[in-house]
Amino acid sequence: MRDDIDVLVHEVGPRDGLQSIQTIFPTQAKMDWIKREAAAGVPQIQVGSFVPPKNLPQMADSAEVVRRSLEIPGLTVSALVPNLRGAENGFAAGAHQIGVVLSVSEAHNMSNVRRSVAESLDGFSEIVAHRDADDAYKDIVLSGGLATAFGCTIDGKVEVSAVMRVAEEFLKRGADRISVADTVGYANPKQVRDLFDELYRTVGDDVPVGAHFHDTRGLGLANAFAAVEAGVRELDSCLGGLGGCPYAPGASGNIVTEDLVFMLEGMGLRTGIDLDGLLAAREIMERHLKDEPTQGSFVTAGRPLGFEPATAAA
Amino acid sequence: MRDDIDVLVHEVGPRDGLQSIQTIFPTQAKMDWIKREAAAGVPQIQVGSFVPPKNLPQMADSAEVVRRSLEIPGLTVSALVPNLRGAENGFAAGAHQIGVVLSVSEAHNMSNVRRSVAESLDGFSEIVAHRDADDAYKDIVLSGGLATAFGCTIDGKVEVSAVMRVAEEFLKRGADRISVADTVGYANPKQVRDLFDELYRTVGDDVPVGAHFHDTRGLGLANAFAAVEAGVRELDSCLGGLGGCPYAPGASGNIVTEDLVFMLEGMGLRTGIDLDGLLAAREIMERHLKDEPTQGSFVTAGRPLGFEPATAAA
Repeated sequence: MRDDIDVLVHEVGPRDGLQSIQTIFPTQAKMDWIKREAAAGVPQIQVGSFVPPKNLPQMADSAEVVRRSLEIPGLTVSALVPNLRGAENGFAAGAHQIGVVLSVSEAHNMSNVRRSVAESLDGFSEIVAHRDADDAYKDIVLSGGLATAFGCTIDGKVEVSAVMRVAEEFLKRGADRISVADTVGYANPKQVRDLFDELYRTVGDDVPVGAHFHDTRGLGLANAFAAVEAGVRELDSCLGGLGGCPYAPGASGNIVTEDLVFMLEGMGLRTGIDLDGLLAAREIMERHLKDEPTQGSFVTAGRPLGFEPATAAA
Repeated sequence: MRDDIDVLVHEVGPRDGLQSIQTIFPTQAKMDWIKREAAAGVPQIQVGSFVPPKNLPQMADSAEVVRRSLEIPGLTVSALVPNLRGAENGFAAGAHQIGVVLSVSEAHNMSNVRRSVAESLDGFSEIVAHRDADDAYKDIVLSGGLATAFGCTIDGKVEVSAVMRVAEEFLKRGADRISVADTVGYANPKQVRDLFDELYRTVGDDVPVGAHFHDTRGLGLANAFAAVEAGVRELDSCLGGLGGCPYAPGASGNIVTEDLVFMLEGMGLRTGIDLDGLLAAREIMERHLKDEPTQGSFVTAGRPLGFEPATAAA
């Protein structure tokens, strides 16, 4: 990680946000959003997902969005892939980081991708082999994502030991980093701290570990704080909390990027991000929304009088 | 504190929530709300404020609400007073706990009550003397409240040393407990932890300390978690987050009682409160609202599959 930031905020809105709403953003709208947010200092953006267009038409232009995002100086461009086919396309497009996610909960993984966890891990190994077979791909960072790590809507409780097993398998098979997700918004901050404490004991302090929280039950930022306290230095978030589906009021989106950055900067942790720039990016994003609601508190409340962000103004 | 709960959740909606909205609740509506919430297990409720009715007509029936709340078995009834006159009325009504709040920020205190902090502290001493002069009042708990402890909309930054000075003065003058408030929603969780760490070093671990957070910038529950981590065992909150003024979108209310209870119970901390009962109380409260919005995530998202609250079901 860059040495001028303390926590890497990984914007996932163009992927997780957009795939959760009805509106399909034109490619240019995605690029306007991505460029403005990168200009605000966001160091890494997940710009798309390499899935069959019939499954997620919102993501059909991911190759082009990756290619155009690569032209933005200093931005780390990430994308998600579900399998080897997707990885081949993501690698070819040139993404710096490719995320592969499986659900720690067997029932959730089966329901999502019709594979056991073991089969999904084998699929991850194929992706690693594909990268390692081509020298042109050697710098691509492969991220192993652990969904439903804090609980599952089908299985309920998910054992910490199961999370540890999958994390170790990912690393054994060649993951450069792992990302732990509260996919369904079940986590509480004590659980978060305990799980990351155990994870660092299990995999060591040198493995880059990210966290991905949803704010479904209002605890998203409390969980983010707990993760940071436990040592996590990479957090996913979504500008405006995009992704709360208007047809399912309980299905809230990711934690809100601008609220997260406000929290971290106030705590003295440098994100490299300018809050006013984030609000400008949010406006651009919101112009293209139809009925989808956005979330967030900082956008209405603004900065406290005398607020001093950790990241010095440019 | 009762030994069957780990954290005391102090509902302040009938005071802080109702005084921040336009709708004036009839006394019976307040009582329906208070009774239902007490039945859910909420151990302490701030039911009113002894201020001149022309200033806050919503609170004009506070004496009657206190008297009727005293009939609810097991409920600790608290009220707020601004000065000796209010305390006389609050004592006479029979409230178990009386809160007296001043702003640590001189400018905020002057703007609010036209007194310096020193004058407000002298006013607190008068209230203590009035209690101590009458044996009938000897069991009344006097709480010293420190508003704007994390920052101020007029002065900006508020020094931790100023908070410590006021806390020590409150205790020296006879406060039984102190309550530290982020009145304007400026705090971040690191600041919260640092301030409470310093407070316990200053006043010792034996003084009961409460915390009062607003969710203005989305960090309310993160701050509550940080306070609990620092050792705080009494938290103010408001059912449905009532108090976000519809005419000032940035002016969000207190942290949401049901979301707070969900967080604490999930963390293994017993509140003695039943979440379904809270939602039933929320429904009763909402029936009387006009255009005022309510907040909260648990009410739409519900409990996670397999959720095990720390407080055993009755």
